[in-house]
Amino acid sequence: MPFDDKKGMQIAYEEALEGYKQGGIPIGACLIHEDGRVVGRGHNMRVQKDSMTLHAEISCFENSGRLPASLTKKCTLYSTLSPCTMCTGSALLFKIPRVVIGENETYMGGEDWLAKHDVELINVKDNRCKDLMDKFIKEHPEIWNEDIGE
Amino acid sequence: MPFDDKKGMQIAYEEALEGYKQGGIPIGACLIHEDGRVVGRGHNMRVQKDSMTLHAEISCFENSGRLPASLTKKCTLYSTLSPCTMCTGSALLFKIPRVVIGENETYMGGEDWLAKHDVELINVKDNRCKDLMDKFIKEHPEIWNEDIGE
Repeated sequence: MPFDDKKGMQIAYEEALEGYKQGGIPIGACLIHEDGRVVGRGHNMRVQKDSMTLHAEISCFENSGRLPASLTKKCTLYSTLSPCTMCTGSALLFKIPRVVIGENETYMGGEDWLAKHDVELINVKDNRCKDLMDKFIKEHPEIWNEDIGE
Repeated sequence: MPFDDKKGMQIAYEEALEGYKQGGIPIGACLIHEDGRVVGRGHNMRVQKDSMTLHAEISCFENSGRLPASLTKKCTLYSTLSPCTMCTGSALLFKIPRVVIGENETYMGGEDWLAKHDVELINVKDNRCKDLMDKFIKEHPEIWNEDIGE
């Protein structure tokens, strides 16, 4: 993968790892501008903040501040896991043209919806992302099921 | 409309009005369980919290605490305005079977996506909701355009 995608997924993975260390669901995300700037980063905060909506991508946007779509439409969104319908919908709202994910074996969200709106989706199949999720789900299946609405 | 929908839209409208008084975008939402309990309520916090993601519906979910889908799948989501793609995606994630909106003339979000997933959508065409948005957009067109990703 190109340098920037490697960097983006590395940051997303570090966020996932940080979430895991906090006892949370290990999914991380970051937002990188086409000029290389890291605009935002974050991880799932369901456990840490008792939050239904702070998935990794939403946390990342929250941590980015109040960005206009004129900026986000020049960004790539990285996530260690395929975004759920809410996070997919946020990418569409913010006109993000490109989404790079670590894996979609653990969960597949709204990929068809991204495709329908011509958002480029790249799955880099990063085993570290899947291994971390496998570990968490084995330890806390009930928290994971809650997060994906099961 | 049935009593509960009248009550739900009244609460959502009061939230929108509260947002307006705070100088924010006047869109409100609430979540009501089929047993009549008001599970959550909130309004758009873009201006108040410099937030990209705290639309009325997301605020409402955040204020509701960490609810499982076993509860949200028995709720109706009320919003003074047709939900954007992010908020539509959150309703789908939380398996909400019924969405009641005040209007969709100011903006229409992911209604087709709700229909595709058999979520019941009811537009009660509440003029108070539209009048409040008209007033706000006339006063702050740039804030409104930012909120819908223009």
